[in-house]
Amino acid sequence: MTDAATNMRLKLPVICLVLEIILIIIFGTLVEYDYETDARLWHAKNRSDYENDFYFRYPSFQDVHVMIFIGFGFLMTFLQRYGFSSVGFNFLIAAFALQWATLMQGFVHGMHGGKIHIGVESMINADFCTGSVLISFGALLGKTSPVQLLLMALFEVTLFAVNEFIVLTLLGAKDAGGSMTIHTFGAYFGLVVTWVLYRPNLDKSKQRNSSVYHSDLFAMIGTLYLWMFWPSFNSAVTAHGDDQHRTAMNTYYSLAACTLSTYAVSSLTAHDGKLDMVHIQNAALAGGVAAGTAGEMMLTPCGAMIVGFLAGVISVLGFKYLSPILESKLKIQDTCGVHNLHGMPGVLGAIVGAVTAAVATEDIYGDGMADVFPAIASGEFTASYQGVRQGIALLVTLGIALVGGVIVGYILKLPIFGSPPDSICYEDSIYWEVPGEEPSHEELLTTVRTEESEKLNS
Amino acid sequence: MTDAATNMRLKLPVICLVLEIILIIIFGTLVEYDYETDARLWHAKNRSDYENDFYFRYPSFQDVHVMIFIGFGFLMTFLQRYGFSSVGFNFLIAAFALQWATLMQGFVHGMHGGKIHIGVESMINADFCTGSVLISFGALLGKTSPVQLLLMALFEVTLFAVNEFIVLTLLGAKDAGGSMTIHTFGAYFGLVVTWVLYRPNLDKSKQRNSSVYHSDLFAMIGTLYLWMFWPSFNSAVTAHGDDQHRTAMNTYYSLAACTLSTYAVSSLTAHDGKLDMVHIQNAALAGGVAAGTAGEMMLTPCGAMIVGFLAGVISVLGFKYLSPILESKLKIQDTCGVHNLHGMPGVLGAIVGAVTAAVATEDIYGDGMADVFPAIASGEFTASYQGVRQGIALLVTLGIALVGGVIVGYILKLPIFGSPPDSICYEDSIYWEVPGEEPSHEELLTTVRTEESEKLNS
Amino acid sequence: MTDAATNMRLKLPVICLVLEIILIIIFGTLVEYDYETDARLWHAKNRSDYENDFYFRYPSFQDVHVMIFIGFGFLMTFLQRYGFSSVGFNFLIAAFALQWATLMQGFVHGMHGGKIHIGVESMINADFCTGSVLISFGALLGKTSPVQLLLMALFEVTLFAVNEFIVLTLLGAKDAGGSMTIHTFGAYFGLVVTWVLYRPNLDKSKQRNSSVYHSDLFAMIGTLYLWMFWPSFNSAVTAHGDDQHRTAMNTYYSLAACTLSTYAVSSLTAHDGKLDMVHIQNAALAGGVAAGTAGEMMLTPCGAMIVGFLAGVISVLGFKYLSPILESKLKIQDTCGVHNLHGMPGVLGAIVGAVTAAVATEDIYGDGMADVFPAIASGEFTASYQGVRQGIALLVTLGIALVGGVIVGYILKLPIFGSPPDSICYEDSIYWEVPGEEPSHEELLTTVRTEESEKLNS
Repeated sequence: MTDAATNMRLKLPVICLVLEIILIIIFGTLVEYDYETDARLWHAKNRSDYENDFYFRYPSFQDVHVMIFIGFGFLMTFLQRYGFSSVGFNFLIAAFALQWATLMQGFVHGMHGGKIHIGVESMINADFCTGSVLISFGALLGKTSPVQLLLMALFEVTLFAVNEFIVLTLLGAKDAGGSMTIHTFGAYFGLVVTWVLYRPNLDKSKQRNSSVYHSDLFAMIGTLYLWMFWPSFNSAVTAHGDDQHRTAMNTYYSLAACTLSTYAVSSLTAHDGKLDMVHIQNAALAGGVAAGTAGEMMLTPCGAMIVGFLAGVISVLGFKYLSPILESKLKIQDTCGVHNLHGMPGVLGAIVGAVTAAVATEDIYGDGMADVFPAIASGEFTASYQGVRQGIALLVTLGIALVGGVIVGYILKLPIFGSPPDSICYEDSIYWEVPGEEPSHEELLTTVRTEESEKLNS
Repeated sequence: MTDAATNMRLKLPVICLVLEIILIIIFGTLVEYDYETDARLWHAKNRSDYENDFYFRYPSFQDVHVMIFIGFGFLMTFLQRYGFSSVGFNFLIAAFALQWATLMQGFVHGMHGGKIHIGVESMINADFCTGSVLISFGALLGKTSPVQLLLMALFEVTLFAVNEFIVLTLLGAKDAGGSMTIHTFGAYFGLVVTWVLYRPNLDKSKQRNSSVYHSDLFAMIGTLYLWMFWPSFNSAVTAHGDDQHRTAMNTYYSLAACTLSTYAVSSLTAHDGKLDMVHIQNAALAGGVAAGTAGEMMLTPCGAMIVGFLAGVISVLGFKYLSPILESKLKIQDTCGVHNLHGMPGVLGAIVGAVTAAVATEDIYGDGMADVFPAIASGEFTASYQGVRQGIALLVTLGIALVGGVIVGYILKLPIFGSPPDSICYEDSIYWEVPGEEPSHEELLTTVRTEESEKLNS
Repeated sequence: MTDAATNMRLKLPVICLVLEIILIIIFGTLVEYDYETDARLWHAKNRSDYENDFYFRYPSFQDVHVMIFIGFGFLMTFLQRYGFSSVGFNFLIAAFALQWATLMQGFVHGMHGGKIHIGVESMINADFCTGSVLISFGALLGKTSPVQLLLMALFEVTLFAVNEFIVLTLLGAKDAGGSMTIHTFGAYFGLVVTWVLYRPNLDKSKQRNSSVYHSDLFAMIGTLYLWMFWPSFNSAVTAHGDDQHRTAMNTYYSLAACTLSTYAVSSLTAHDGKLDMVHIQNAALAGGVAAGTAGEMMLTPCGAMIVGFLAGVISVLGFKYLSPILESKLKIQDTCGVHNLHGMPGVLGAIVGAVTAAVATEDIYGDGMADVFPAIASGEFTASYQGVRQGIALLVTLGIALVGGVIVGYILKLPIFGSPPDSICYEDSIYWEVPGEEPSHEELLTTVRTEESEKLNS
């Protein structure tokens, strides 16, 4: 099974070591502590310790961190023989992407005297960018080598930073929870890559493209952590005070409503009313995605619930009816259904954000307008123009994701990166030392003996 | 196996959609951001961002949230064939209950100009109320349809809010961690419901009413999250400052002591000294339940440890000796043993709270009296009268739980909600699409071939 | 299988109850709330609630708590038949150790008027000390009874407190994240104990000293929680403000770099380039260990990455080449490879800390010097002398760990504590009631029938 093509012995070490050494050199040259992490600068400012941004954002950061490593990692363990790769490659590419994102986001978000300044907010943003890469990974799951994934991360992080710069800085759009920049971008980028990497003979591995009982339970660990901490995700980089508070609460209600519509539509569309774990694991999260842009706005709890409700409905219907069509007609083999969890709900979230921005008034926001829509508060934009810019931001995001995905897809298609053959996709043992599924024979014998002796004792 | 009676295709979607649409309409009519989540109101107050309640309570909220969804959900996965339902129904009814609780608690806790005002504290309270429903679910585990569970949540949340109003507002009792309002209420409510729903022929499913090796490990995830975050649970809504700090610490020591007494008594009562996972998974948590009322009081660390120690002893003895009697004599089929984890330790906690309140003095509490016992600080009650009111609160809680449970039990008994037949209880496949336990045959063949080729390679 | 020697029926209850009762008595005599947890004292201070240390440290405490109970507990579940003991004994000895550590650390860290004062910082320190015991447990995993483990905890916590007092107080060394006091101490202590307890015939149990597929996934839960929350661990007790912020960030980058070098070297040293789960589960964490001393210093992000990178390389090489030698030549049977994860990276971290301290200047630290190196700021030490003292601290730590480990090892060797025979190591059923690995036969029949009926329905 391990032939020259998929043997990672040289390829993987080389790419890991080269990337890490480059990172260390650039960090050494360009990256500095910001004034909140630097001993001299912080003390020179003479501020109270509780004003340090650490206390406003670090708990949210840790929640986001759990979503990235446990949430995404375990969500993808649903496949019966791909748990090591799901969690393990997720771990590897996330650890790389967050370092690379620190640099790429630092470059485009503005340097300070030629240096990139970092602190807890840049850590959250790096994790966010990483999340986008992991969404794309979901579309490719089971069909790529770790070398391909690291290369994808390298390019995708770079394009992510460019897109984020255009959306947030040039267009002045708001997208604190990343309906556009993270979810829409990551999903459509990944879908295009998997489209370029289309495998007509993937049927040869279809017997492994499904779950077993315990793998579905492991995946629920991922689902629930994503679900629980999504309020922290959407509020992690919003303004201090009411903004973080409101964003978390809107997301909480959006997710709760989404869960009910997910269960309803999952049961409704099954031929015998039985719930489908794929829907529960994924669609119940769509409410978090869809609240990513408007979550910080005065969406109202009721508005958040409507958004979540719709996201759940769309997402389950996508899994049930759209994904098979995407695969058979458009040749898009989307392993995790990221189009249903991140793609469509991301677009929905972008639209909701544009509409909510367009109807913002001084009456509703008061002096809080400067936090949520600084350009409206300063008189630079009208509310409706803010809404238009939000819409343009969605189109730009889709454009960069689609074009970037095609280019990166063709790079990954080069036959030198050790991707698995069609007959051994969704299989850990191609890249991992895999132990047996069951205890060894001797062990079973011991167990039997134990049971027998216990019977004798009782 | 799926016959008309248990087919959820219409029942489950209808109840989910109807409930969610009702929720959205009432939220749209009555629910508003409070001044800490509203952009205009917060900025009008002109307070520093770090004074926003978000920063005092959100980390605790997230810990509570993990307890509700991962803690309760995975604690119940110990059954060999009920993991999907344990985690999945827990998820569904919690997502519903927290929305409904926002409304019910809003109604009884006082409206503001005809509106319910919400923020992080109401989110915590909604999660608390949800916890109570999930405790009742534990008693019923494996024997009810999701429709029955949603109906139970609907009624139980309502009664919870009424009881909470009587206990906290009318009686002026203190119960920050909910020994009475959450644990005692949820446990006895659930026990009465399962008593009404008694199944004389449940033996037909007894082969599934037990764990397998890995299901016990999944359950330990639930146990440990509940154990670790219980200090956050008990302190989540106590007063800012020393109160939150002290409550968390008391709970921490109570749980640690409880763990040692649980292991001791579990080993002591086994015929060959072997530890029983059921005890470890459950009884080690009783120290958190029992510190729910007095945790915020000046219980002293030593006092907290004594309470936890006793709770562990009581709880293991309950599992070992009382549960079999409850089932055989009183016809109470308590799947998770909630009487041992939440019922008796909850009553113990209420009594400890009453005694600790009764001995409160100005000498011990100083100016902190106003936080813990405002009625004593203002001279409205004497300490001993506060203690009496705590005792009355326990009786009221028991009364409402028992009477409410009977009524709700008979409603759930109506033969139209799709409960499983006696022979297919504790079984996921009745309500879920369930994959095989093991990899498919082809997969195993592939693995074998791999191993052979590896031997050749090495 | 359960003979008199390993029967815990009297031994385990007696030691648990005696220890807990002693703890309760000493707590009742000596332990008091500190002024931040005491109702009267806090209110007498008249400080704002947000200045209470709870809000600076409690989120980090909870992260540390998760590392102790989920992180260490699940990391050790990789063994195929030792999951109950890994999680369950971890739980037991941690619950005991944190109480005992409160007392031991209280004694040596200075009493207040004859009393030990406790709050969130003492809770973190107690968890830290507990972590050290759990590291030692990792070396012994599978080969000791719970009674032995509790006794080890009793002695090790005591020695930990003595060593910590010498290192931090007498020598004035800095070690906020415990590269020396926690990791080096715990690892070498455990290694010496396992050396004393050497089992020449352990081969008889070797068929269970390995993982199965799902046990490796459970272990990854432990790994990832340790990895994600290590920034909180290292920063939990550093000074407020920039110090906590910087420490968390340094650790974050150290771990990310470590992950890439771990994957690289794991793949490079495998004969066919396949990744080894043992390396991923363990070596990827070495970056957190190695940043334990210097994390709070002005290490720079680049410096942190270099440290993490080296730690990952050293750790994988240790697993691959050094551990087999330690076992065959030095008779050290290190089940979890704690020498590779905690031992060598701990020493590396101590050296990095000494060097970083030695080059500290007023120019770099400014007024922040007083937080990080109070003795340098006050002029008591020069920077290079601080570095020397750091180095001495490492030697003292190694000395106390090695000598203490020998003594404790010989105590544990007494043949009265019920350790398992060589042929039944790494086996849960000796101390636990263990259910079957698989669903019962009837259950499987039911499943088959279901599948057949579904085929008929479809």
